[in-house]
Amino acid sequence: MRIFSRLLAVVGGLRWYNSEAHKRKKLIILGTGWAGYSLLKHVNKKLFDVVVVSPRNHFLFTPLLASTTVGTLEFRSIIEPIRNHGFRDERDFHLSRAVGLDKQKRIISCQSELDSTRQYDLFYDRLVIAVGALSNTFGVPGVEKYAFFLKEIADAQKIRNRILVNVELATQPGVPEDERSRLLHFVVVGGGPTGVEFSAEFYDFLKQDIARLYPGERDMVKVTLIEANQILSSFDIKLRRYAEGKIKQRSQMKLLRGSVVEVKQNSIKLKDGTELPCGLVVWSTGVAPRMFTETIGVEKDDREQIVVDEYLRSVSDRKKCIYAIGDCAYVKNSPLPCTAQVAERQGRYLAKALSQEDPPKFHFKHFGMLAYIGEYKALAETPVAKSRGFTSWVLWRSAYTTRLGSWRLRMQVPLDWIKTFFYGRDTSRF
Amino acid sequence: MRIFSRLLAVVGGLRWYNSEAHKRKKLIILGTGWAGYSLLKHVNKKLFDVVVVSPRNHFLFTPLLASTTVGTLEFRSIIEPIRNHGFRDERDFHLSRAVGLDKQKRIISCQSELDSTRQYDLFYDRLVIAVGALSNTFGVPGVEKYAFFLKEIADAQKIRNRILVNVELATQPGVPEDERSRLLHFVVVGGGPTGVEFSAEFYDFLKQDIARLYPGERDMVKVTLIEANQILSSFDIKLRRYAEGKIKQRSQMKLLRGSVVEVKQNSIKLKDGTELPCGLVVWSTGVAPRMFTETIGVEKDDREQIVVDEYLRSVSDRKKCIYAIGDCAYVKNSPLPCTAQVAERQGRYLAKALSQEDPPKFHFKHFGMLAYIGEYKALAETPVAKSRGFTSWVLWRSAYTTRLGSWRLRMQVPLDWIKTFFYGRDTSRF
Repeated sequence: MRIFSRLLAVVGGLRWYNSEAHKRKKLIILGTGWAGYSLLKHVNKKLFDVVVVSPRNHFLFTPLLASTTVGTLEFRSIIEPIRNHGFRDERDFHLSRAVGLDKQKRIISCQSELDSTRQYDLFYDRLVIAVGALSNTFGVPGVEKYAFFLKEIADAQKIRNRILVNVELATQPGVPEDERSRLLHFVVVGGGPTGVEFSAEFYDFLKQDIARLYPGERDMVKVTLIEANQILSSFDIKLRRYAEGKIKQRSQMKLLRGSVVEVKQNSIKLKDGTELPCGLVVWSTGVAPRMFTETIGVEKDDREQIVVDEYLRSVSDRKKCIYAIGDCAYVKNSPLPCTAQVAERQGRYLAKALSQEDPPKFHFKHFGMLAYIGEYKALAETPVAKSRGFTSWVLWRSAYTTRLGSWRLRMQVPLDWIKTFFYGRDTSRF
Repeated sequence: MRIFSRLLAVVGGLRWYNSEAHKRKKLIILGTGWAGYSLLKHVNKKLFDVVVVSPRNHFLFTPLLASTTVGTLEFRSIIEPIRNHGFRDERDFHLSRAVGLDKQKRIISCQSELDSTRQYDLFYDRLVIAVGALSNTFGVPGVEKYAFFLKEIADAQKIRNRILVNVELATQPGVPEDERSRLLHFVVVGGGPTGVEFSAEFYDFLKQDIARLYPGERDMVKVTLIEANQILSSFDIKLRRYAEGKIKQRSQMKLLRGSVVEVKQNSIKLKDGTELPCGLVVWSTGVAPRMFTETIGVEKDDREQIVVDEYLRSVSDRKKCIYAIGDCAYVKNSPLPCTAQVAERQGRYLAKALSQEDPPKFHFKHFGMLAYIGEYKALAETPVAKSRGFTSWVLWRSAYTTRLGSWRLRMQVPLDWIKTFFYGRDTSRF
């Protein structure tokens, strides 16, 4: 009798479990950047079976990425493993990239990031495309081959390694003077926040660590920031001029107005014909579509971003179950910049909207911008106030510390800053 | 008149500077491991112009290396940049490897680690060879190609990456059961402290993180520790039996007595003919000479270690200016084990002996041994007491924290432990 009642209970439980599972819709999120991650964090997991497909199993706090290229912060201090975010089943996260979309059958084709021969399909009820974008090379020859991008941790690792190698090589016996000077010339293409912040971090590294550890090389190091138009063009003109002024005061840093026509192994060529010998080129100019965005059959704008309506739904999907957010999306009638802030807010909006019968339209309210320009100085621009200098730098650090995704990072990032301040940056190479 | 007196002062200063510089002897240290680093730290830099040649620009705290393979500690938490140790001139550190020795001319030939076409010679008054040793493959086919060593940070990085890849791959759709089981079988060859501590760290990772993040894979994971004789053979028999007992209690860990005859891409073959499919082989069995030690013309023992007298001087150098310390040296008449402790003490001894007219003989006093065996348990053996279990684990952690080379590391290592305890290990892959 007891066995019988227990069996009944088990069967009842199973039925309940199954019906719950069947009620839940399958939501596939492509990507683990700002947009995908904020959606994953906030979406109601009781209503959806959430599946994430991404070639990267962590979220990267991009505003601090430039700091890791010189060791002000360590790589793992600004990333958060995706699997810490409570998947129902560990098979709901796929370290794979999406390679195809069948809108009719509602199927995403995936290719394993770990074994490229492994392909498989996943069915979805709702699909959110948050694959982000690539750096735009504007078709300039040599960029893909010789320049370094600054989008992922692996990019920052490569840059950090190259900087250390070049400085070490410059100290070795028998290296001719012009070769040393080439090795120690660092070029940054693109005067947006990423380019400016990388130059700033590198300049701090030069003044605080290279000067101390390599006194004989210190004066040979040069940084050139190349921009065709204005640096930090999204900022207020007063702040921009302040930043330009500060940069121009630095004898070892040069602001160059120009266009790059070719990147070679040991130099960079400008439109006016000049060729600058250099030891590193960091390329950070605008965004370009990823392969997946380019190939799928949904409406896109002339920059190949997926066109979405005010509810962030793809305008060309009649079934109303495909969404796009972040750098790969273009909101029809109200275009937004490709920033972390926009992506994060879109993810958060969608997390709520997906569980609403009649969601409100997406509305973006700009919170402000921050940019570090080196030597403990930053720019801060909010809808209510503009500031610059040391106080803005304090704001910059506090704002980012509180925005970090977890207490683990909120503990580690300030400790990294303390270590850098007291002991200098780690120049070990391995 | 003032100009004349100033000129005189300058010339006088130069003469003084030159005579000081000429009085100082040129000491070349090859290597930045335990032996070379402790010599560099303690040698009297007023008496010697110290030059260091090493393919590695940091010192690595090897006893904690195993902890970094699974992320209990981070890579940069256990290394110390060599350049932080006050060189007179930044050109006195060479990121190069020694490739030749001319005893007659007292010249070391170096090859740049950053550009292999770059070769040059350095003159020495005193030469200290502290190049360490390699892992011994015993000529077993496939080891170089398919197994992972555990000597440097780069090795630990590769192991960590492989573990993450295998576990992620095992969760992907369409991977057959036997392939999943192979991917999740981790083999360690060699039951010395390194092999045992790596198994222990991996076992903790399995119980604390894989179990939490990959519940479906948890029970498939297996660790096999292969040793031809005794594990931890340098420890007291009671401690050894305790460790063996603990390991045997673990259902997912196996202690296998056997010899490996071949390592293949996806399996390992034993002498008795059995072939074990596996996803990772970590090889840590004994030491073998480095190329430099093999090729130079000084007396060596049958294991190709440089034979030195009680003053750590090479017995075959008539000029009495070549020394060898650490894993690459063999002290005639009183052989010592190849451990960090011996190497560190030899470096420290030589730092003093080099500036003495009539130094005492080198005498090694054993301080004790520690080994971590997993699950917050360790072995501790000192000349006065033997202990095991949780209290030894506390001793293990405290001892290593205080032995770390700098306050930067002494801050970071406990923080890493706290992060691991509260938030789990970082499983991000990049």
